[in-house]
Amino acid sequence: MPVEKEVSKAVIRRLPRYYRFLGELLKTGTERISSRELAEKMGLTASQIRQDLNCFGGFGQQGYGYNIIELHKEIGHILGLDVKTDAILIGAGNLGRAIANHMPFEERGFSLIGIFDQDPALFGQKVRNIPIQSTDDLETFCKAQHPFAAFLCTPKTATLPLSERLIRAGIQAFWNFSHCDIPVSGRNIVVENVHMSDSLMTLSYAIKEIQRKS
Amino acid sequence: MPVEKEVSKAVIRRLPRYYRFLGELLKTGTERISSRELAEKMGLTASQIRQDLNCFGGFGQQGYGYNIIELHKEIGHILGLDVKTDAILIGAGNLGRAIANHMPFEERGFSLIGIFDQDPALFGQKVRNIPIQSTDDLETFCKAQHPFAAFLCTPKTATLPLSERLIRAGIQAFWNFSHCDIPVSGRNIVVENVHMSDSLMTLSYAIKEIQRKS
Repeated sequence: MPVEKEVSKAVIRRLPRYYRFLGELLKTGTERISSRELAEKMGLTASQIRQDLNCFGGFGQQGYGYNIIELHKEIGHILGLDVKTDAILIGAGNLGRAIANHMPFEERGFSLIGIFDQDPALFGQKVRNIPIQSTDDLETFCKAQHPFAAFLCTPKTATLPLSERLIRAGIQAFWNFSHCDIPVSGRNIVVENVHMSDSLMTLSYAIKEIQRKS
Repeated sequence: MPVEKEVSKAVIRRLPRYYRFLGELLKTGTERISSRELAEKMGLTASQIRQDLNCFGGFGQQGYGYNIIELHKEIGHILGLDVKTDAILIGAGNLGRAIANHMPFEERGFSLIGIFDQDPALFGQKVRNIPIQSTDDLETFCKAQHPFAAFLCTPKTATLPLSERLIRAGIQAFWNFSHCDIPVSGRNIVVENVHMSDSLMTLSYAIKEIQRKS
């Protein structure tokens, strides 16, 4: 099915959530769903769902609903999940281990091919069956293996110098968990931040809002 | 300084980032900054910064710039960081430990007062000097201590039944790290999601975009 070239950023931001919900439905054996039912499950309106999904061609048919298998597959394709990007993870502390152990990288468009830390006590230990290497060896590794993405689970102070080294070594994409922003201006580099600290402050605001109102 | 009552959601979403940048500046001893300088540091335009910060009254003065101490304090106040909310953390695996150990809760508007897991092997172990308790004791703990917020670092399958129990026990705010959405419709409950899996898919999309273009 042909996909339109330009989809708005807001729709793109919602795609992972659609993908996740449709994946859950597939697991239950459901094959089709109406926009109204999907809206109920996702806490959206049926008309927003129809608008969003119409961007990707004719998956919905009046009186039939959406074909979940096809729609799930097409959204996965748009998100690029069917082509794996090689990635390395830097920082094998609790957070790095949690991410390495629990994230279904292969289902999310990535292959984790290396894990690095600066603590010699960790070298050789395995996480997800990958041995932890020294960050001193990053350049050598990148030259040989050409990972495209780096997952940064590093302390704030280490992040900036590390990200510069990684960019020089050919890394073009960052999944950044550290409490600092990576400057990318004018470079062909993408950064997806998971700023937990900002998220926690947003929750603080929301709490004070409901407390003010009650 | 009087604060206008209604600030748009988009501005609110940006406040934690302002707060974080201004905090960094304070640490370096900087006392004032122009919107142009702040814009450069944050990768925004000076006019967007002026628009955003004008919502909160007259912190910027032409030819002087922003008083960083006052602005930082006021944004912290708007975010509610100066009033602590009691919170408990559920799930003391790698992710839960990473969050418990490294998040500066007190600076972000929260006090962590309890940690819970269902694995008996962990009971009594201390994280951030807080002993891990059994999730069986959640109701008793909530009845005695009245935490308002819960941080969920639980597997997807455990999250829904747990969140229902917690809501019945008086929890009104969730910081949700599990790969599932908590239904709150019609209830006076706030949820802030950190959906890492969605974030990783968004990165996958961005990578395929720059690969298509180059």
